[in-house]
Amino acid sequence: MGLSAKTSFRVRYAETDQMGIVYHANYLVWFEVGRSELFRELNLPYTQFEEQGLGLAVIEASCRYRKPSRYDDELVIITEIDHMSSRTASFSYQVYREETLLAEGKTVHVFLNKEGRPVDVRKYAIWPLLQSILEK
Amino acid sequence: MGLSAKTSFRVRYAETDQMGIVYHANYLVWFEVGRSELFRELNLPYTQFEEQGLGLAVIEASCRYRKPSRYDDELVIITEIDHMSSRTASFSYQVYREETLLAEGKTVHVFLNKEGRPVDVRKYAIWPLLQSILEK
Amino acid sequence: MGLSAKTSFRVRYAETDQMGIVYHANYLVWFEVGRSELFRELNLPYTQFEEQGLGLAVIEASCRYRKPSRYDDELVIITEIDHMSSRTASFSYQVYREETLLAEGKTVHVFLNKEGRPVDVRKYAIWPLLQSILEK
Amino acid sequence: MGLSAKTSFRVRYAETDQMGIVYHANYLVWFEVGRSELFRELNLPYTQFEEQGLGLAVIEASCRYRKPSRYDDELVIITEIDHMSSRTASFSYQVYREETLLAEGKTVHVFLNKEGRPVDVRKYAIWPLLQSILEK
Repeated sequence: MGLSAKTSFRVRYAETDQMGIVYHANYLVWFEVGRSELFRELNLPYTQFEEQGLGLAVIEASCRYRKPSRYDDELVIITEIDHMSSRTASFSYQVYREETLLAEGKTVHVFLNKEGRPVDVRKYAIWPLLQSILEK
Repeated sequence: MGLSAKTSFRVRYAETDQMGIVYHANYLVWFEVGRSELFRELNLPYTQFEEQGLGLAVIEASCRYRKPSRYDDELVIITEIDHMSSRTASFSYQVYREETLLAEGKTVHVFLNKEGRPVDVRKYAIWPLLQSILEK
Repeated sequence: MGLSAKTSFRVRYAETDQMGIVYHANYLVWFEVGRSELFRELNLPYTQFEEQGLGLAVIEASCRYRKPSRYDDELVIITEIDHMSSRTASFSYQVYREETLLAEGKTVHVFLNKEGRPVDVRKYAIWPLLQSILEK
Repeated sequence: MGLSAKTSFRVRYAETDQMGIVYHANYLVWFEVGRSELFRELNLPYTQFEEQGLGLAVIEASCRYRKPSRYDDELVIITEIDHMSSRTASFSYQVYREETLLAEGKTVHVFLNKEGRPVDVRKYAIWPLLQSILEK
């Protein structure tokens, strides 16, 4: 599909651990920051999903850590939609410090309603907008 | 009032920072763990507040850090109700490693409804139970 | 190998997100809690690794989320050593609420020295102890 | 003194809790983000302190929460040096969403060496730079 977004951010002190590097779970938080930015750039902010009673719950997440990142590093996360259907979506992520790839990951999601049941997004008002984006 | 609870827990690796000690914001998380335990011991688990559409939002929090805590430390948090009325509540906390006081803090709260407006708990089903506890 | 440990803990309010369930990155934190407990039960607390200048850095982490967990849930995490050599180790994790499997995951690690370089643990004082455990 | 910095950032999904608003402990993390930015703008990035074996440990932190912040809010944090000497420092913080003050807080710090003992910064190479800033 090739829909992607680039987000810059700085590593927070709170994100480090006593090994002197970023604690690994924080990369999943950054992936979500990248995902948020991607939706925003597509004029489809994630808040709109939730306003319609839709959630995009994570069912799988994985990350490969290649090099450590450190406090105050200025990082870039590249988020790409791997696949999106009316029921599921998956994204891939790459975290860079300048030209150096630090980590890469993937998340898989399902659309859920407010009760936490899987739903078909085609029944929601957001669908035409989502569809037009996917067709690009 | 003197209502208090004691909770034991171990410091997680994720809670440390690159200074080699626990990152200070985590103490507020621990305070909430202590508060949860206190309500549970009073047979008034916080989940019951939320089931009735009530929240106990933090409006003030403070902590004094006396000695650092470290990964794998076995800590005890003592949580005490300082004051509770039908609209507000305040708690104090002490974090110990064995006999050593590491930190102490305080939080102040208001009761809110689901819309985030301050409410009087006397209008809620939980009130008689809460009142009987406060009278002890 | 079959070396495993069981750890119980309660979900913290801080671990939830506005979907009303536990934010997915926290499972990686719990995995580390399980790993810590496993080492402690093997009489080889992770603090001993670090005292000898050794780290066990995460190079891969993954999680499959089957059912959500919620605030105040009492959970059990089962941590198992999948593989351990003098240079690398991998662990698998299962998170349960009573009989229900909520999530399962895996982490892969390398032993690093203080400078962050991969090392062979056989050169460290901890090795005989580690070896005797692995031979069980 | 009047030395201050302004930092913009967006609320992360991970920072919310099941009340649908930002979990209160995250404000302390944001305060640290503001502090980092302030030092960077003074050409005295906090990494330089640590390179010289100096830490600026938090000994007190407090926050008053006036209005909730929510996922995806674009916030501004204004960080100000209240007081700085060769041994201690204190900062104040204000968190805004556009014109609305959401929270304000304060932290107090001591300079520590690598062993965690209070030190006098005048003995460190960073002092002349720090002094020149303070005299502004």
